[in-house]
Amino acid sequence: MTSPHTLILLRHGQSQWNELNLFTGWVDVRLTEQGKAEARRGGELLAEAGLLPDVVHTSLLSRAIQTADIALDAADRLWIPVTRSWRLNERHYGALQGKDKAETLAEFGQEQFMLWRRSFDVPPPPLDDASEFSQVGDVRYAGIDGEVPRTESLKLVIDRLLPYWNDAIVPDLTAGKTVLVAAHGNSLRGLVKHLEGIGDDDIAGLNIPTGIPLVYRLDENLVPLGPGEYLDPEAAAAGAAAVANQGK
Amino acid sequence: MTSPHTLILLRHGQSQWNELNLFTGWVDVRLTEQGKAEARRGGELLAEAGLLPDVVHTSLLSRAIQTADIALDAADRLWIPVTRSWRLNERHYGALQGKDKAETLAEFGQEQFMLWRRSFDVPPPPLDDASEFSQVGDVRYAGIDGEVPRTESLKLVIDRLLPYWNDAIVPDLTAGKTVLVAAHGNSLRGLVKHLEGIGDDDIAGLNIPTGIPLVYRLDENLVPLGPGEYLDPEAAAAGAAAVANQGK
Repeated sequence: MTSPHTLILLRHGQSQWNELNLFTGWVDVRLTEQGKAEARRGGELLAEAGLLPDVVHTSLLSRAIQTADIALDAADRLWIPVTRSWRLNERHYGALQGKDKAETLAEFGQEQFMLWRRSFDVPPPPLDDASEFSQVGDVRYAGIDGEVPRTESLKLVIDRLLPYWNDAIVPDLTAGKTVLVAAHGNSLRGLVKHLEGIGDDDIAGLNIPTGIPLVYRLDENLVPLGPGEYLDPEAAAAGAAAVANQGK
Repeated sequence: MTSPHTLILLRHGQSQWNELNLFTGWVDVRLTEQGKAEARRGGELLAEAGLLPDVVHTSLLSRAIQTADIALDAADRLWIPVTRSWRLNERHYGALQGKDKAETLAEFGQEQFMLWRRSFDVPPPPLDDASEFSQVGDVRYAGIDGEVPRTESLKLVIDRLLPYWNDAIVPDLTAGKTVLVAAHGNSLRGLVKHLEGIGDDDIAGLNIPTGIPLVYRLDENLVPLGPGEYLDPEAAAAGAAAVANQGK
């Protein structure tokens, strides 16, 4: 019998714009002190569980990179190899980037708000390239195949995420490495949808809490041996409820 | 005319054992608050000079990794690709690891002390594998070709450093990338010796201060167009003098 492969997903903790209740997307805001504390707790949970990553993958956004750095410091694994990709970035929120969530809800109403936040394939209106919140022309994305997005649905996130999963993460898993992915609410939702085979209509109900490692054991075909397990289930349930209530 | 290549060397700031005046070598101690402030200042100097790294190389030791993370955060370059190697580690100080520098000086005398600290090819006595300060069996070095060192001279450091320089750093430079190397007093001395063609007898006089970026412009053959330049020359001179006086 083959040992199962181990994949650990970690959503970054509170960012400056989470705290302000703004749509963030690709805008590169940093963690708050609370967000840093969440990351440290995430690393401590890994160490306590003896789940020590051999390699880490992050997005190109600072809040995910900070989360990985702080968690790995807490787990005494700062030294593991790291790979970064824009394909792990948060969903681009289009014209909503920089907008207040509660104001957006009030302005557009619950139905449109939830459609943008939770529909599978309806992206918000595109962000104007001239916006201060646009990433078009950002040197960090000079290497992107094709163009920097102006908006994305969850479907589009999955479309750009899966090549990285297949080309960069899967080889690490099949090589027997314990893999940590430090990323974002929607890129991780997309990955969980793919792993667990969740349907397009059901994914809206999945809310991943921040800062709590979500652990998958995978068989040799990288099919989960069971549902993902949070290292702190009680905190995860409370965190998921908080995410579901955002903007309310 | 080809644009010159740019290489930036950054020695980690004060560590917990620098503060305690202990020989550290491969023992994985963290930065102090002062060391973190030095790293931030290093990143600010990079940003002020408009010297923005495209890629960073670190050792496998936490104090160099912390330095890179903090400096890149300050320069808003957290997202650049990072590669780590044991070949950039500090010199292994053998049986001196964990010993007090002043006590070692008093016990062995100035001549032996300086021979171990500054001779080119005389390593300290080897560290016993059973020592709490040994890295033999440390999972972080499971991938090392050959064996984890028990002691090293500067010559041995250069011998294990140059393959990484040639195979990992040179390709980044020749690809036109601005390269940051975050490492240690002796691995950086070895690299500077190689770059500037400093003789075996003269390298003892070179002291690299902590936390201040040292910038080399290199021609197309990666020969320096001039001596390395510190981004804060006054602070660098004071820092180099402080290093030279360690243990006194």
